[in-house]
Amino acid sequence: VNAQTDSVVAAVDWGTTSFRVWLLNAQGEAIAESRSDEGLLKAAETGFGKILEDHLRNLGADSELPVIVCGMAGSRQGWMEAPYTSCPAKLLDIPINAVAMPGTTRQIRILPGIAQRRADDPDVMRGEETQLLGLGEKLDKGSRLVCMPGTHCKWVVTEDGKVERFATWTTGELFNLMSTASILRHSIDGKSAKVSPGDPVFHDWAKRGLAEPEATFRHFFTIRAATLLGNLETIHAAAALSGLLIGSEIASALSWSGDERLPIILVASGNLSDLYSQVLAQAGMEANVEDADAAVRAGLFLAYMLDSGQKKREATA
Amino acid sequence: VNAQTDSVVAAVDWGTTSFRVWLLNAQGEAIAESRSDEGLLKAAETGFGKILEDHLRNLGADSELPVIVCGMAGSRQGWMEAPYTSCPAKLLDIPINAVAMPGTTRQIRILPGIAQRRADDPDVMRGEETQLLGLGEKLDKGSRLVCMPGTHCKWVVTEDGKVERFATWTTGELFNLMSTASILRHSIDGKSAKVSPGDPVFHDWAKRGLAEPEATFRHFFTIRAATLLGNLETIHAAAALSGLLIGSEIASALSWSGDERLPIILVASGNLSDLYSQVLAQAGMEANVEDADAAVRAGLFLAYMLDSGQKKREATA
Repeated sequence: VNAQTDSVVAAVDWGTTSFRVWLLNAQGEAIAESRSDEGLLKAAETGFGKILEDHLRNLGADSELPVIVCGMAGSRQGWMEAPYTSCPAKLLDIPINAVAMPGTTRQIRILPGIAQRRADDPDVMRGEETQLLGLGEKLDKGSRLVCMPGTHCKWVVTEDGKVERFATWTTGELFNLMSTASILRHSIDGKSAKVSPGDPVFHDWAKRGLAEPEATFRHFFTIRAATLLGNLETIHAAAALSGLLIGSEIASALSWSGDERLPIILVASGNLSDLYSQVLAQAGMEANVEDADAAVRAGLFLAYMLDSGQKKREATA
Repeated sequence: VNAQTDSVVAAVDWGTTSFRVWLLNAQGEAIAESRSDEGLLKAAETGFGKILEDHLRNLGADSELPVIVCGMAGSRQGWMEAPYTSCPAKLLDIPINAVAMPGTTRQIRILPGIAQRRADDPDVMRGEETQLLGLGEKLDKGSRLVCMPGTHCKWVVTEDGKVERFATWTTGELFNLMSTASILRHSIDGKSAKVSPGDPVFHDWAKRGLAEPEATFRHFFTIRAATLLGNLETIHAAAALSGLLIGSEIASALSWSGDERLPIILVASGNLSDLYSQVLAQAGMEANVEDADAAVRAGLFLAYMLDSGQKKREATA
């Protein structure tokens, strides 16, 4: 494999706190990868162009290799704003609204996010739309409920390849805030330890969250009191908090979706994928699991191909 | 009024982040007051005894004036542990379990908190039990649902002068964390501004919280998206967050109480009292409002009097 000759595009997922780039070959396969914590927050200081070029140089990419970007780099506080596409949004149309970075030697295009412009229920996503695009034909026909865990977890109802509506739960952010900055920080030992999906404590608290999603911020304190009164060891408190939050989110999201017969697709990677699968199973739902990293790469590649095709059609027209 | 000759006891409410002391006369009336931010967290460094004596000296208190303390100073991480009284707990019995500080010239006693030792529903309070004691005969007969807002809001079911059961919502803490440390910090202008109970934005979001308490941490992000998409001005976002949280708490607590016919007593002071009254009214509940500061002073005074009476009885026995 030769990064310089075999790659056709550099695919970048640029989030708030993370940067990832893959060099993709003509079949959309990753032949090289680089990742760092140079997300939006750091890039706003260091400079987006510099970070991107440093990573591409290290990977041995050609200086004219085109780049396609999704995520927070396209937000108003990012590199260059790629205005939101409005919901309902046909996934295959997303690349049409990509914006081109001016004044660069290589072609750099940033994909837009999706906005749900409803006065009573506004919402936005940036990055997840590209993962959805990457699911391809799996969303082409019929309705699906897509669960996308993370700092801000998205649940999306799709229909015939369109994003119909979506909502966001701040589950990951609450886990971080509660375990490091709230009264619970005194109750949680091993904050950075990986919560095991097989842990009975995780299971018990997920059950609680599923049964009483309206009591989540009462149960935050129940965890505190349980460690004070000897009902819960501090080494298990992170599992309790994680189970409580994921259980509450899933109960709330299933209620939000309004149709419990929708087939569920879980787009996640690694441990988070196992944790959500486990709690969905507790709720009596079976999810088809799709790897989030593979999905975003596939989405970026498809967007690049559609974009190139569009330009070729424009050139011949 | 002469602080040195007219006061019979110094009443101290010592919380996690605040210290308050009142000199009380023989009728339990406050004749002098001092407060600071020298709560448990600072006192653990500076020294509890030094802080207390500094305040008492500034107030001109007699060197032998007895002191009665409630709150986090009696926790394991505090000045001296006053072990929890178990629930159900008769309020008038609380002073019996006060602990005496050894090796001080003046008499210093710390009141215990209450623990609800139920494996499935553990909870603890320190300080609120003294406010409840201060409500006196208002809790003597029949059942009440007492709402006590704060960083950690307590809801308490009392029966014939006993604390039967209680639960804690981390409402105030979540408001602080979300408005200063979460993604919402970018959406909230005027974080420290007082939220007005008459603000229609506060009212609208309280309605949302009351209607969908299971969706609280979805609506955290709704506030974020609403400011991004122009549905909510950042200057109103703190009111939205406050309304959402208080509405969610009240819906969750009324459901927890299990008996919607219980008369409600709201123990709060100032703006917080107005905010909770307003949302309780939105929920169709009318609360009797008791001032939290007056309640804790009355509770501390009553505890002191009962304690002295007990000692006199012991001396004559």
